[in-house]
Amino acid sequence: MDSKEFREAAVSSIDEIISYYDNIGERNVVSTVEPGYLRKLLPSEAPADGEPWSDIQQDIEGKILPGITHWQHPGFHAFFPCATSYPSILGELYSAALSGACFNWICSPAVTELETIVLDWLAKILGLPTCYLSMGPTRGGGVIQGSASEAVLTAMVAARDKYLRETTPAGLEGDALEDAIAHKRSRMVALATSMTHSSTKKAAIILGVRFITIPVSAEDGYALTGPVLAAALENCRARGLEPFFLTATLGTTDTCAVDDFDGISSSLADFVPAGSPGEVWVHIDAAYAGAALVCPEVQEATEISLIDRFHSFDMNMHKWLLTNFDASCLFVRDREWFTRALTINQAVYSNTASDGGLVTDYREWQIPLGRRFRSLKIWFVMRSYGVNGLQAYIRRTTQLGEDFASWLRARPGLFEILTGPSFALTVFRMVGKDTGECNARTKKLCDRVNATGKMWVTSTLLDGRFAIRMMTGVRTTEKEHVEAAFQTLAENAEDVLKTT
Amino acid sequence: MDSKEFREAAVSSIDEIISYYDNIGERNVVSTVEPGYLRKLLPSEAPADGEPWSDIQQDIEGKILPGITHWQHPGFHAFFPCATSYPSILGELYSAALSGACFNWICSPAVTELETIVLDWLAKILGLPTCYLSMGPTRGGGVIQGSASEAVLTAMVAARDKYLRETTPAGLEGDALEDAIAHKRSRMVALATSMTHSSTKKAAIILGVRFITIPVSAEDGYALTGPVLAAALENCRARGLEPFFLTATLGTTDTCAVDDFDGISSSLADFVPAGSPGEVWVHIDAAYAGAALVCPEVQEATEISLIDRFHSFDMNMHKWLLTNFDASCLFVRDREWFTRALTINQAVYSNTASDGGLVTDYREWQIPLGRRFRSLKIWFVMRSYGVNGLQAYIRRTTQLGEDFASWLRARPGLFEILTGPSFALTVFRMVGKDTGECNARTKKLCDRVNATGKMWVTSTLLDGRFAIRMMTGVRTTEKEHVEAAFQTLAENAEDVLKTT
Repeated sequence: MDSKEFREAAVSSIDEIISYYDNIGERNVVSTVEPGYLRKLLPSEAPADGEPWSDIQQDIEGKILPGITHWQHPGFHAFFPCATSYPSILGELYSAALSGACFNWICSPAVTELETIVLDWLAKILGLPTCYLSMGPTRGGGVIQGSASEAVLTAMVAARDKYLRETTPAGLEGDALEDAIAHKRSRMVALATSMTHSSTKKAAIILGVRFITIPVSAEDGYALTGPVLAAALENCRARGLEPFFLTATLGTTDTCAVDDFDGISSSLADFVPAGSPGEVWVHIDAAYAGAALVCPEVQEATEISLIDRFHSFDMNMHKWLLTNFDASCLFVRDREWFTRALTINQAVYSNTASDGGLVTDYREWQIPLGRRFRSLKIWFVMRSYGVNGLQAYIRRTTQLGEDFASWLRARPGLFEILTGPSFALTVFRMVGKDTGECNARTKKLCDRVNATGKMWVTSTLLDGRFAIRMMTGVRTTEKEHVEAAFQTLAENAEDVLKTT
Repeated sequence: MDSKEFREAAVSSIDEIISYYDNIGERNVVSTVEPGYLRKLLPSEAPADGEPWSDIQQDIEGKILPGITHWQHPGFHAFFPCATSYPSILGELYSAALSGACFNWICSPAVTELETIVLDWLAKILGLPTCYLSMGPTRGGGVIQGSASEAVLTAMVAARDKYLRETTPAGLEGDALEDAIAHKRSRMVALATSMTHSSTKKAAIILGVRFITIPVSAEDGYALTGPVLAAALENCRARGLEPFFLTATLGTTDTCAVDDFDGISSSLADFVPAGSPGEVWVHIDAAYAGAALVCPEVQEATEISLIDRFHSFDMNMHKWLLTNFDASCLFVRDREWFTRALTINQAVYSNTASDGGLVTDYREWQIPLGRRFRSLKIWFVMRSYGVNGLQAYIRRTTQLGEDFASWLRARPGLFEILTGPSFALTVFRMVGKDTGECNARTKKLCDRVNATGKMWVTSTLLDGRFAIRMMTGVRTTEKEHVEAAFQTLAENAEDVLKTT
């Protein structure tokens, strides 16, 4: 494909993408193909000779789009959004064109420097304490990871390294040192709650450390409180275990609960004072709801200023902030915690700027070596929308969640809200005489509304209570779509009520 | 940015990208900005109001491109290539438009199914044994990872899980079981050679297992041989350590050496027979040179058919196979090794297709949860080039390496080849009376040719011998460019010779 062919192919692709977005509401939200559909449509081997672009492109609509679940569809109310935008797509386009394995500064200074700059911009608009800024008092800063899972893994590796450095007895060498560390590793434990995203458990599995789940309850709004944490810490101590890591969440997956940062920090201070050797590293997982911090009222309500007592913070711009997957923005209070744990030098990467310590080499802040130019799309989105535009989007979609919840409340004969609305997420179920009936009805309702193809909601289980999660954060979702979704839910709920 | 504005912005971006590629040779290969250049050019905060695209776009040429090191430049002879192509860029474009967090099948069946299909296509054209095919006899298959570092980490996590399952004494429960596992973990060791990429060591650090480097020597061509491995294994056993993982390499970073797969498998069979409990997992890292396996003559020369005795294989299409970073293709002989180690269920991800075991959920084959639609670009590249086109590209750029080496050999008064040409990589140095003089001259030569801005070579150290790595794999590099690079090297070497 030469330049002329590329221009033609690219313009035709752009037109197809525009048409896809302009008419996305006419498609079913969720793909209805059967498992294995694509193997029947494609040859079993790569072609020997190249094919013209026109042949390839026609397979997008013909073979790929039937197998796509449309995350940008206005009726997508499942999970969390993966809200992209046109400026973000342009960012991916340029990033692809400038492709390189930019593992250190000299491999493309702009890739490193733009990342540092836009993450400082982001930290400021999210209202993070200044310790998370690259120019801040504690040599902190941000780095773009592929996902919140990678972020928590990176943080946990750094936390383990910090903990072992601070608590391994001095004066040991060789085998005695190795044995002491091995013993310590076997007692170390990472903590999370029953509502924490599974990525913390997965990180603990990868690290090979123990993992303990702290149960949280409906009466605490499924949030972690200080007293509950204090009890869990004491229990660890009583068992001879050494807690070194805790994930606290701003916007849990199931219900968008916010853990009690003040209570957590008090309980931790009683256990091992902050800044003392062996303190528990606290990672804030704000993967989804962190986006809402662009609004000052949310910064205040969540007491985000308190996280200066903690160690790392992560949010995904690729969820609710108009940026393509992947853009998980991880901030740390002291970047040396990352670089001490993750730096490995190899002769072939040696260069003047790195060797002189003049620059940031983000490969030392992450699991992989190479990296894409991901800051470009963040830069485009921030400049194209402006802070006001981002705030307007968050407020608009949050309000849709409030509207939806108010309509639920107006139908007490059909629905009961279990949690929310919280960050554009409402968790509700159908009413019934007992849990069994509620669950059966709600499950039936969920299946029925999803079967319409016009909307997609996902479900969860809260203390055995089957519930529907309704999320209104997608960029293309307008009030009319939420109204239509509520209508579909209400009509189907009435039918379910009649038949059960 | 509405559809109309997007069309205008996208077409203008496409034109800029074409112009960038058409004229890339006129730029300096390596950026010459000073550390911190970009902070001086950009505001310290995100704009309050959105800006028009024209303002944003003009900053690409004005502020970003000066800070780019051009990996697609015909004079880029550093590291390994990150060779992209126009069809691949189109793949990224569509992937961005269809953005979703496709962690399981139902989240977009096409994303999962196309990945399985194109990785089967790839396994076939690389000549991998059938055990690595998704429909093969051992339930193997491929998965796209972000980088070779993530691939080796994933493989090592699975290997540890498999090893512990196979070797932990039966009948233990509770604390006794935990203690036995903790003790075992503390004795487990991952192995690699002094030429293995640092990602294996990094994976061992992340897992918290011991890591031992096996030295390889110039006389073995810097490859791992059976006897050297056997000695290392015996040494572990004598120290009471338990080797569970080995990375063997097809095309090492420094010199593109290929480890002796037959010798490795013999030595391992003597240690713990293949398929027996506690066998050592062998991961083949073919990150760069694996691309050359598209040529049958390379499949034969590297004895790739022997890897049916091993456990996993990884190659990066984003290095030498015309596909954008990131596209690291990881194959495993039995996918259950991945899923048993990496599956964590959470109520919110429950769905009929997954719960029924009908489909592949790639989140269980990787560290992160979410994933991009990366198979699209691989599909576009394979179809656009065809197998013949991919082979022609590998053979052409390999031949450039042969040509370059022949020119070096023709100037024995200036140059000495240390290794290669191997997979389009030649490692050489300037001649001199002793290592000190050779090193000083070669270092000076390296700095001088890089200072021209017209080419970029990187260096390495082989047993204390400073050497230049000359790689000729970039798509835009033609014979005239390699001739010009050699000319620059020869002229500067003559100058260096005169002045030392």
